[in-house]
Amino acid sequence: MEQERISDAVARRLPGYYRHLRELEAAGVTRLSSRELGERMGLTASQIRQDINRFGGFGQQGYGYHVPDLKRCIGEIMGLDREHAMVICGAGNIGRAVAHYPTFRNEGFRVLALFDVDEALVGQAVQGAPILHFSVFESFLAEHDIEILVIATPAAHARRALEMASAAGVRAAWNFAPVDLSVPEGMEIANVHLSDSLMSLSFRLHERDIRQGGASKRWIKE
Amino acid sequence: MEQERISDAVARRLPGYYRHLRELEAAGVTRLSSRELGERMGLTASQIRQDINRFGGFGQQGYGYHVPDLKRCIGEIMGLDREHAMVICGAGNIGRAVAHYPTFRNEGFRVLALFDVDEALVGQAVQGAPILHFSVFESFLAEHDIEILVIATPAAHARRALEMASAAGVRAAWNFAPVDLSVPEGMEIANVHLSDSLMSLSFRLHERDIRQGGASKRWIKE
Repeated sequence: MEQERISDAVARRLPGYYRHLRELEAAGVTRLSSRELGERMGLTASQIRQDINRFGGFGQQGYGYHVPDLKRCIGEIMGLDREHAMVICGAGNIGRAVAHYPTFRNEGFRVLALFDVDEALVGQAVQGAPILHFSVFESFLAEHDIEILVIATPAAHARRALEMASAAGVRAAWNFAPVDLSVPEGMEIANVHLSDSLMSLSFRLHERDIRQGGASKRWIKE
Repeated sequence: MEQERISDAVARRLPGYYRHLRELEAAGVTRLSSRELGERMGLTASQIRQDINRFGGFGQQGYGYHVPDLKRCIGEIMGLDREHAMVICGAGNIGRAVAHYPTFRNEGFRVLALFDVDEALVGQAVQGAPILHFSVFESFLAEHDIEILVIATPAAHARRALEMASAAGVRAAWNFAPVDLSVPEGMEIANVHLSDSLMSLSFRLHERDIRQGGASKRWIKE
């Protein structure tokens, strides 16, 4: 039987489950209830149960969840039990920040190389991954089995990098360029909008002003 | 009457509305229906209407939304019609990437300074903002009216920067350090988890394998 595509809301919550379970496991917690997990994550116990049941249900009535088992299962669901080969287009601040980021390097995501057109950067290495000239990008893709392209170029170059990767059979793109890229046939894409969380934060500040009566505006128009 | 706190789901969707409306406005679109906006954003027409009604309702039956008006209103709701003074703790790749990021600099978010303990970085500038030594962080906060602290330090230093900012009356923290910081009394915080979107992407690849029957595992345990 074919599985239904999991909703974006659930797909977005999965990494949060994994993070919290990893922290709990590291703190020596072996079991907890859906209510306790919900309190940690800002979700209701029933949302927790629904989400986890979506993947088969790992809890037991009256016992709750076994933390290491649930963490391992959610990790497998996200494919963290295997290696993911990545390349990064753009070796500027964002590209280098991604190559340095510790969290996912420990989870099997491996950066094989970075690509840039800046001759001053070519020849350097970031965390052992060489910075190569973009002119060899296509031949590199042909010679290596790359699963994920990280796009950290200026907006104007993002589409070209994506198209070259798609043609070479790369399966997914993690896009940091400030432009929403539509997904080529057969690929998955995640568009990261760094400033979205800043704007949500700014909204919360404005909301707080309104709640405290310190602002002249209200949401509701007269 | 006091307003209720808007749900996290709606607060998270607001920046997406703003982004899409900005693009539509730039493309010369002046009006569109909730159905059209929903298709662009991957939401149903009824979700769109519900979200927007939450803020007072800017649409007209049979006309839809006036794009520039709705964009301006959502911008005001997020406080984008005023300046936000920020400082960045940590002038490594992430801190510098944030200072360079073009999207929010155009929306009134202004970086006044970066702080680091690395003497090699102190004295440089990023987009006109000086990199200062962390030893002057507290006195800088006392002398400037800073609204938002960006935390781009290693995990071990994040809490100290947050506490100093909280004591100085900074209202919000935008945290890129790979550690979930709990929010001090009176502050708002957004914890950014860069790798979450990568893990969601990895999940989608695994899901695709399962749907296409290429993987041996299924969600549902036997």
